Amino acid sequence: MKRFEPIAKGVSGILHGGDYNPEQWLKWKDGIWKEDLRIAKEAGLNSLSVGIFSWAMLEPEEGRFCFDWLDEVMDGLHKNGLTAVLATPSGARPAWLAQKYPEVLRVRADGHRNAFGGRHNHCLSSQVYRAKVKIINTELARRYGKHPALGLWHISNEYSGECHCPLCQAVFREYLRAKYGSLEALNEAWWSAFWSHRYTDFAQIEAPSPRGENDTHGLTLDWKRFTTEQTVDFYLHEIGPLKACAPQIPCTTNLMAGYTGLDYARLAEVLDVVSWDNYPQWTGSSEKDEQIALETGYFHDLMYGLKKKPFLLMESSPSATNWRPVAKLHRPGVHILQSLQAIAHGADSVQYFQMRKGRGGSEKFHGAVIDHVGHENTRVFGEIKKFGREILPQLDHIVGAPKPAKVALVHDYVNGWAIEGMRGALQGETGYTKTLMAHYGAFWRQGVPVEIIDQGASLEGYALVVAPMSYMLREGFADRVKAYVEGGGRFVTSYFSGYVNDTDLCFLGGFPGPLKEVLGIWAEELDALYPGDENAICWNGKQYRAFELCELIHAQGAEALGSYAGDFYAGRPALTAMTLGKGKAYYIAARTGADFLDDFYQSLLGELKLPAYPGGGGLSVQIRAHEKGETLFVINFGAQERLFKLDGEEIPVEAHGFALIERKS
Amino acid sequence: MKRFEPIAKGVSGILHGGDYNPEQWLKWKDGIWKEDLRIAKEAGLNSLSVGIFSWAMLEPEEGRFCFDWLDEVMDGLHKNGLTAVLATPSGARPAWLAQKYPEVLRVRADGHRNAFGGRHNHCLSSQVYRAKVKIINTELARRYGKHPALGLWHISNEYSGECHCPLCQAVFREYLRAKYGSLEALNEAWWSAFWSHRYTDFAQIEAPSPRGENDTHGLTLDWKRFTTEQTVDFYLHEIGPLKACAPQIPCTTNLMAGYTGLDYARLAEVLDVVSWDNYPQWTGSSEKDEQIALETGYFHDLMYGLKKKPFLLMESSPSATNWRPVAKLHRPGVHILQSLQAIAHGADSVQYFQMRKGRGGSEKFHGAVIDHVGHENTRVFGEIKKFGREILPQLDHIVGAPKPAKVALVHDYVNGWAIEGMRGALQGETGYTKTLMAHYGAFWRQGVPVEIIDQGASLEGYALVVAPMSYMLREGFADRVKAYVEGGGRFVTSYFSGYVNDTDLCFLGGFPGPLKEVLGIWAEELDALYPGDENAICWNGKQYRAFELCELIHAQGAEALGSYAGDFYAGRPALTAMTLGKGKAYYIAARTGADFLDDFYQSLLGELKLPAYPGGGGLSVQIRAHEKGETLFVINFGAQERLFKLDGEEIPVEAHGFALIERKS
Amino acid sequence: MKRFEPIAKGVSGILHGGDYNPEQWLKWKDGIWKEDLRIAKEAGLNSLSVGIFSWAMLEPEEGRFCFDWLDEVMDGLHKNGLTAVLATPSGARPAWLAQKYPEVLRVRADGHRNAFGGRHNHCLSSQVYRAKVKIINTELARRYGKHPALGLWHISNEYSGECHCPLCQAVFREYLRAKYGSLEALNEAWWSAFWSHRYTDFAQIEAPSPRGENDTHGLTLDWKRFTTEQTVDFYLHEIGPLKACAPQIPCTTNLMAGYTGLDYARLAEVLDVVSWDNYPQWTGSSEKDEQIALETGYFHDLMYGLKKKPFLLMESSPSATNWRPVAKLHRPGVHILQSLQAIAHGADSVQYFQMRKGRGGSEKFHGAVIDHVGHENTRVFGEIKKFGREILPQLDHIVGAPKPAKVALVHDYVNGWAIEGMRGALQGETGYTKTLMAHYGAFWRQGVPVEIIDQGASLEGYALVVAPMSYMLREGFADRVKAYVEGGGRFVTSYFSGYVNDTDLCFLGGFPGPLKEVLGIWAEELDALYPGDENAICWNGKQYRAFELCELIHAQGAEALGSYAGDFYAGRPALTAMTLGKGKAYYIAARTGADFLDDFYQSLLGELKLPAYPGGGGLSVQIRAHEKGETLFVINFGAQERLFKLDGEEIPVEAHGFALIERKS
Repeated sequence: MKRFEPIAKGVSGILHGGDYNPEQWLKWKDGIWKEDLRIAKEAGLNSLSVGIFSWAMLEPEEGRFCFDWLDEVMDGLHKNGLTAVLATPSGARPAWLAQKYPEVLRVRADGHRNAFGGRHNHCLSSQVYRAKVKIINTELARRYGKHPALGLWHISNEYSGECHCPLCQAVFREYLRAKYGSLEALNEAWWSAFWSHRYTDFAQIEAPSPRGENDTHGLTLDWKRFTTEQTVDFYLHEIGPLKACAPQIPCTTNLMAGYTGLDYARLAEVLDVVSWDNYPQWTGSSEKDEQIALETGYFHDLMYGLKKKPFLLMESSPSATNWRPVAKLHRPGVHILQSLQAIAHGADSVQYFQMRKGRGGSEKFHGAVIDHVGHENTRVFGEIKKFGREILPQLDHIVGAPKPAKVALVHDYVNGWAIEGMRGALQGETGYTKTLMAHYGAFWRQGVPVEIIDQGASLEGYALVVAPMSYMLREGFADRVKAYVEGGGRFVTSYFSGYVNDTDLCFLGGFPGPLKEVLGIWAEELDALYPGDENAICWNGKQYRAFELCELIHAQGAEALGSYAGDFYAGRPALTAMTLGKGKAYYIAARTGADFLDDFYQSLLGELKLPAYPGGGGLSVQIRAHEKGETLFVINFGAQERLFKLDGEEIPVEAHGFALIERKS
Repeated sequence: MKRFEPIAKGVSGILHGGDYNPEQWLKWKDGIWKEDLRIAKEAGLNSLSVGIFSWAMLEPEEGRFCFDWLDEVMDGLHKNGLTAVLATPSGARPAWLAQKYPEVLRVRADGHRNAFGGRHNHCLSSQVYRAKVKIINTELARRYGKHPALGLWHISNEYSGECHCPLCQAVFREYLRAKYGSLEALNEAWWSAFWSHRYTDFAQIEAPSPRGENDTHGLTLDWKRFTTEQTVDFYLHEIGPLKACAPQIPCTTNLMAGYTGLDYARLAEVLDVVSWDNYPQWTGSSEKDEQIALETGYFHDLMYGLKKKPFLLMESSPSATNWRPVAKLHRPGVHILQSLQAIAHGADSVQYFQMRKGRGGSEKFHGAVIDHVGHENTRVFGEIKKFGREILPQLDHIVGAPKPAKVALVHDYVNGWAIEGMRGALQGETGYTKTLMAHYGAFWRQGVPVEIIDQGASLEGYALVVAPMSYMLREGFADRVKAYVEGGGRFVTSYFSGYVNDTDLCFLGGFPGPLKEVLGIWAEELDALYPGDENAICWNGKQYRAFELCELIHAQGAEALGSYAGDFYAGRPALTAMTLGKGKAYYIAARTGADFLDDFYQSLLGELKLPAYPGGGGLSVQIRAHEKGETLFVINFGAQERLFKLDGEEIPVEAHGFALIERKS
Repeated sequence: MKRFEPIAKGVSGILHGGDYNPEQWLKWKDGIWKEDLRIAKEAGLNSLSVGIFSWAMLEPEEGRFCFDWLDEVMDGLHKNGLTAVLATPSGARPAWLAQKYPEVLRVRADGHRNAFGGRHNHCLSSQVYRAKVKIINTELARRYGKHPALGLWHISNEYSGECHCPLCQAVFREYLRAKYGSLEALNEAWWSAFWSHRYTDFAQIEAPSPRGENDTHGLTLDWKRFTTEQTVDFYLHEIGPLKACAPQIPCTTNLMAGYTGLDYARLAEVLDVVSWDNYPQWTGSSEKDEQIALETGYFHDLMYGLKKKPFLLMESSPSATNWRPVAKLHRPGVHILQSLQAIAHGADSVQYFQMRKGRGGSEKFHGAVIDHVGHENTRVFGEIKKFGREILPQLDHIVGAPKPAKVALVHDYVNGWAIEGMRGALQGETGYTKTLMAHYGAFWRQGVPVEIIDQGASLEGYALVVAPMSYMLREGFADRVKAYVEGGGRFVTSYFSGYVNDTDLCFLGGFPGPLKEVLGIWAEELDALYPGDENAICWNGKQYRAFELCELIHAQGAEALGSYAGDFYAGRPALTAMTLGKGKAYYIAARTGADFLDDFYQSLLGELKLPAYPGGGGLSVQIRAHEKGETLFVINFGAQERLFKLDGEEIPVEAHGFALIERKS
């Protein structure tokens, strides 16, 4: 196996750094800037991210540029052996730009244009905004594209939101015209005969709005798709000058864990590397923190799956996350667990927001490497330094190493949008991500690696594909599932699958639509249960709690493995298995707790004989495979010591501790 | 007694049908349209409602009409022996209309005009909108007014909401000018000297708005009255062409159970027949469902009382109601109980939303006769068919039969508005409808029929009139009450009565104002209790819980029957009776639970010797009187079998079952 | 000691009156007006407040004035020996003014202009509004400035809210220009390099808005300061004509207890006398009412402290407060306790909203001297009369008497704003006022008088200064604290102190910033605890609950008196004392319950040997010092009789009773 390439130029190990805003301290540069570099090295940092939100300092008035301070910063980084992650500044526009060209400000769904302020408050369709971004990005690329400190471009910041201005509406109409060709096709796809919504002119179409139409599902989905495409297009616009001047430098933009406003699977296609910002809400309660560890692991795997490649942890807090309702301090040790977990799941970096707490601004109480006190004799710094100086040097060989998995979990952003907009069953509480995490948990607790993919991904090579709540089946997915199962794969899906097509039109002829044959069932009705109400699934001699959603299905070819225990559908199938070709397809008809999912997937994993490293009680095991073999990251998020069994040996892992185990390949 | 006329032309029995949108399936008309008719007959349907929300399909561009498809549908209905309920399409306007004439879109209370979208999104004052509606209605009337399938006009759909556009504001000012004659009269009626709100020009008056004035009670009430009058006027505008072309066909518009935005008592005056949409939220929990049965019975009686005549159940769901937060399936049998209950309370139809689930649109998961699966082999269809083929045929003689009652309950929409806007006591929690239902329950549980009327109705012929929380006394009501009591009637009212006149001005000289003499009391103060706090009423040797509202009254001519048990007003009267002429007037000074109301009204009913059919435990008894005698509908909404005692006999009624008992007159 | 001057001209005793709106009853003036005066005297009133919200009646059209009715009212007051509190009518503008000059209507933070309606709905920057106010105020001053009934000017009513119109934005920019001199200074003060918010033109600056910028703390604070300054300026504009015509008549405007939209400490500077409106939410539950008594006492002391002088209770309800969610009646006796409490804390008046309940308007059910019934034979009137005729005459000598205190509590409005906007720790739940009341309670329960001051006040003369949560240290405060401690004072502060300067920039070099030396500590980190989580402080051999906020501090010169019991910071200091010069400074590092505060402050009070009159169980003791000695107001808000010990004697105070004790000086 070959040595993998590190992501950023100029750094051979795991990237260790964070967001750094020296422009906030221009007046103190003789003192504070020097201290920053000294303390960075003291902490074992090897990079810093600069230029994020620096537009007003780089171009204080239209066309007048001020790079002196950034020159000094870049040179300082280089002299001190630190790599620069250099941002384009489009995440927030200068006041003069908003003042002179109001069109750059965003219009909200209610039709009112924003005033200047905040971040992410600009129209991605505005030609003025695009022109100004091109100019500043070109200036940056020309000046720093060949700078020896430059390791990575950081494009804008946390792209998000949408704009409803007339310019965006016009581009949206062009998008629809290109997609559908004719209004006839659009009207059918959107089922616009409902409530007399038939469009006879593209100009009649407006983005979903609380003031206008907000319940035409095809429109809502296309608007969300369009918002993603506009973001992709804007990203490509941003990197144009960078790629022209510095083709060797990779580009990324930082994503956000639970953000659902963009189809990250689509956006990831145009990134050189995925990066994201991770702010788990550790509570200090052991039981809750085990769940948070699981969810954080889920998000890491979601990010890994976007390109099936190592990614960067672009932001994380070394202590309190100031914008949480309860901004709890990280307990001793949490910083190291959190950082190691990222690497265990495929990160090739641990980066912080932020290097130094600002004196002002709404994030001045966010955790940082350097506190307002100014020196490094703080508890938090001690944790960072321990991580940077004692632990990270052991992990150089991990850089670029993949995280192989035989189990795939299907997390589809577009399906998630469709479920969110769905009117029926449990409105607004249908819980797509919650359900995916519940299934994921069964593997996490067994130490079985999972790859998270979307419906557009290939299913080849997996021993097991899990796709709960596949409400919307995107074009081609059902065919791929069929071929996969016939070829010997195991497929699991659940209640609320195979209801609608790409534009949210119901499949006719019975649910789960194109998956009926593969699954061998017909889902006739979906019962919704009130909070507190329960049914149960009988399977393998045990009863398991069922709640919230219970589907009334008929086995039509499939074998009924389990059945309902109560209500008027007692005895009807609740768990089925269909044999097709060399494979098998399972259907779980009701929402269940972790007990059922643990037992069910353990039974499947047993059949499939997949390697597992069962932890339990907050012990997570993740594996990265590299040229020398593989590294097991055994992390104990629990409050008790655990014994980790490996090849007959018992390895103790202390509470809130970890073990790094190397195995030869 | 004569045989009553059925409401719709061409149907001799109970109307059985539902909303049908074949225009959504134009592409499938060779298959699906044929299936629709076959399955409709299989279900025992005798009608279908068409044209609701069909404007864009009937007039795809301004002035170009497309009736071919509807011709085919109407002919198909006729050929298959089905009656058409034909709708005017004004419930939702086509996109071209909104695009070309933005004035037709509604302006919200905050002053912002809506964009195109949704339903009920049009200005009833717009001359453009009225002209366009007149044209399409005229076309419909000319083409189908004599069509043999046509049985009933369905005007628009669920009229509701209000528009704050300049056109509406202008018409509102004209309404006020006509009502008050002068600003002086208006200023006095609205007590505008308060907070310097005196108007010196009609042009200064604007509809209530969160951005402007929203606490001038007279203004708020007049705005609500105006909204009702605009709706009545628009309805009359809509039926003009229909009555001109097809005077023999009755007209209705479908009302909504708990909707309080319109004074339905006023709107009902212009309808040929009342119809409404009933979506009880059955929970599957027996105890809750008994309460829901009671509340649904209340709403049926409310609709019956609007014209004191049989009505139509225009919409109901055969299973899940998709827009409920928990869209629970109807349990087996629920469909039949729900449908029979409607007829028991005076409905001459059972109609569904919807005939076939749409492929798209926000109601695609709403219960229907035909599911997405496309065939009739579904559990839900089985219930519909059983009802249509086995039960309905037994009820032909019920058509048109009245539902006589000796007890009247006063539910006054305008009084309800006044209570809602009231600032004092328990703000926003004063619970007018909740209270009316609590009183209603005491009769429902006794199987004593109740007629629900408003303050404007005649009181003649009733043995008992119950009017709790008559906060506002509309002009003339107190006089009618006095004459009624003097003539021998029993009248019951409660705390929070006789406070204000028609324009929300307090009566001077002591509450309950014009009812002081009839009731023989003075209500000095109204105490509000915090949630959880309680007092009690001592009456007849028992103590009954009193809560939320306790009035401190003085007997001034009345006899104190009961008194308070606690607080600083312990011993003061809490229940009084005043003898006046040949009758008696009772006052209940505090809010109580069902225990008190049951005992109190049983005592009254005992004195009055009114016939009663006590059920209990979810057993409801309703009676319709017809030419051959009367039919008792005994419906058991409970989860236990109940014995219904009649003339010494004990008739078992199974859980979720019913008995239809015919008695000769 | 000299006899103090009464506040209002023409009244020698405590002012007793209330808001009176005879203009609502013009039509009834021969009857109701006469009754008003008769009943006022019957109740022992000596004044009435007129003209509040009378603009539309005084100037029914632009430039046409109608004073006849007010002449008659003023003359009637005088003839009946009643003093007039005469209001300027600017609290609500006439409809004609809004109609002709829309600029006078307020623009909300979302940028939309209000329509006519409500109160407080006008722009304080509008030159039109100012001109019109000047005209009407001049007319009033000329006509009534020398009227023998006139005792006090009541300026507008409850100044509040803010306007975001272009005129206000322009004045705000002028304010900023004057304050900062240059954009450079402003940019640094607001730390605008954060998120690229650097301003390069004053015209770019807009008021905080949900549509624009709402998280630049310096901007938010300056906007709030500006709003206060605009209000002060408007007040001065209002009193101009009054002072010109009637310099002998004092002016006030009525403030509101918990209102935080204005810096009342600044506004009070321009008032001749402070007055406020007190609406405690008595519940009838003894335990809750003891807390409400404490909080009401707090607000009285807050008002007293604004000028360290007696104030007026301008409004209070004699019974229900109609706008409360639960508008409970005042229990018997509550009226007297509530009124006496005001005087005990420094009020020289007991005034009501309202004299007579309006027939209409949103406050028609608010408690009043005269009910809708019209006569005086009501329970509520009986309480008012007892107070006015039996109790008030005993208190003539109290008029003008101060309420001396040796303990100061620092309540700083600007600091409160900063805490409210803070992003970190417990967002939106930081509880500044709640915390101040908790500390206040420890003194209230001991019968130790407290003076409430702000950070701008002198600390001279106090034995103890308590300043919890001094998050923002306004310029000069830390220096004054230091001098005060060095000179022998005791100073107590808490967690979350010394974080930011006047513009919300963090102090560098360690918290509590400029107080580090005085307190001898460094506060390294602030832990936030989830609801339900707890730690404890060990002090003096006991453990006290700590919750919500726990600071991790280092003693650097201070002595650690108490320490944490749990979590990873167990054993670290939680309570410290620093000796500096002749004084001592204490730091409480965590939020605690009343148990700790009681014990801690009793220990301090014991050391300081301050006189105390411990009550307990709802017994409050307040003292006013006058020429003859001092009066102790011993008020029992509890439901049990209490024994009050004084000089060895035991004085019984009955439940909901009181004792007035005179002591010679």
